[in-house]
Amino acid sequence: MPYVNIKITRDGATAEQKATLIRGVTELLQVVLDKNPATTVVVIDEVDTDNWGIGGESVTERRKAGR
Amino acid sequence: MPYVNIKITRDGATAEQKATLIRGVTELLQVVLDKNPATTVVVIDEVDTDNWGIGGESVTERRKAGR
Amino acid sequence: MPYVNIKITRDGATAEQKATLIRGVTELLQVVLDKNPATTVVVIDEVDTDNWGIGGESVTERRKAGR
Amino acid sequence: MPYVNIKITRDGATAEQKATLIRGVTELLQVVLDKNPATTVVVIDEVDTDNWGIGGESVTERRKAGR
Amino acid sequence: MPYVNIKITRDGATAEQKATLIRGVTELLQVVLDKNPATTVVVIDEVDTDNWGIGGESVTERRKAGR
Amino acid sequence: MPYVNIKITRDGATAEQKATLIRGVTELLQVVLDKNPATTVVVIDEVDTDNWGIGGESVTERRKAGR
Repeated sequence: MPYVNIKITRDGATAEQKATLIRGVTELLQVVLDKNPATTVVVIDEVDTDNWGIGGESVTERRKAGR
Repeated sequence: MPYVNIKITRDGATAEQKATLIRGVTELLQVVLDKNPATTVVVIDEVDTDNWGIGGESVTERRKAGR
Repeated sequence: MPYVNIKITRDGATAEQKATLIRGVTELLQVVLDKNPATTVVVIDEVDTDNWGIGGESVTERRKAGR
Repeated sequence: MPYVNIKITRDGATAEQKATLIRGVTELLQVVLDKNPATTVVVIDEVDTDNWGIGGESVTERRKAGR
Repeated sequence: MPYVNIKITRDGATAEQKATLIRGVTELLQVVLDKNPATTVVVIDEVDTDNWGIGGESVTERRKAGR
Repeated sequence: MPYVNIKITRDGATAEQKATLIRGVTELLQVVLDKNPATTVVVIDEVDTDNWGIGGESVTERRKAGR
């Protein structure tokens, strides 16, 4: 019954990679906490680099500056 | 003053359907908990089926497999 | 398969009221968007009034001021 | 180490405005709570006006009605 | 730089189990998407069973009914 | 009309500090994006250090290790 939300920058993750994340995190919750995979929900949000900040800067700015 | 976030797969919900959800959940909070509708905020996120997982699979995979 | 998160201030909502919210929002999603209630997840967060702000003030401050 | 999520309606906020929000909220957390800006994460979600409700109506409806 | 939020019912997960979840999901994001573990943030929310609904019922109700 | 969620570790932030955060972020959204403070909602979540991970470790573990 867990709910997992994964937020990443929008950088071209493929459908296969996202399916691997979904499978992996669902298995992890089953192995560690015996959670039923049938009702484990995973939602992936891909966020534009203008809209993601770390260290007080957007990721767009950081990449331009080579950080 | 409540805040409600509704996440659904992106499957063509119309503006009218989404307005009906907003009205319905706002009324529900007023009826059940006497919450002021004027400051009830509802945000609907529509999520690509590649980015939504249940049962360890993405919804895209499940639909291909007829699940 | 929808996921709904309802945030309200912690003001003594009873288990029955919360169960009514869960049932109501699940039915709303079934009626409006034909979503399967069996996999509709609802999570209610009750938030201390010190930790909820509106109009630039915490709800604790607003209530003290009679707003 | 804080995580901040800012949700606004999609109304043409520029990359510069979003960078200003990211810088501002990161500084605020440093000044008020001495949080390390290097690990402060800010995610901005821009939401279509059909998908944002307040007062039981979508923002699209409210604007049409001049509210 | 990913941000992951895991919501589970409050059922006595230990500090060790939660640390295992944090390590596991951080590694998964490194392996699948080459994300830097140093800036991967994981937040676990434990939710009372009165506040978690599935199938239109709270988990408290479901357990009482043997579901 | 913005909605802001701030997550921090539970480390004794006072009601005054949280009120300062609420006021500050509400003003920031008014100054930068001309958002109406009257309907800006801010929710602060304080998270136990066992439940917050960064760098693949819980904050509890990091502090024990002097990181």
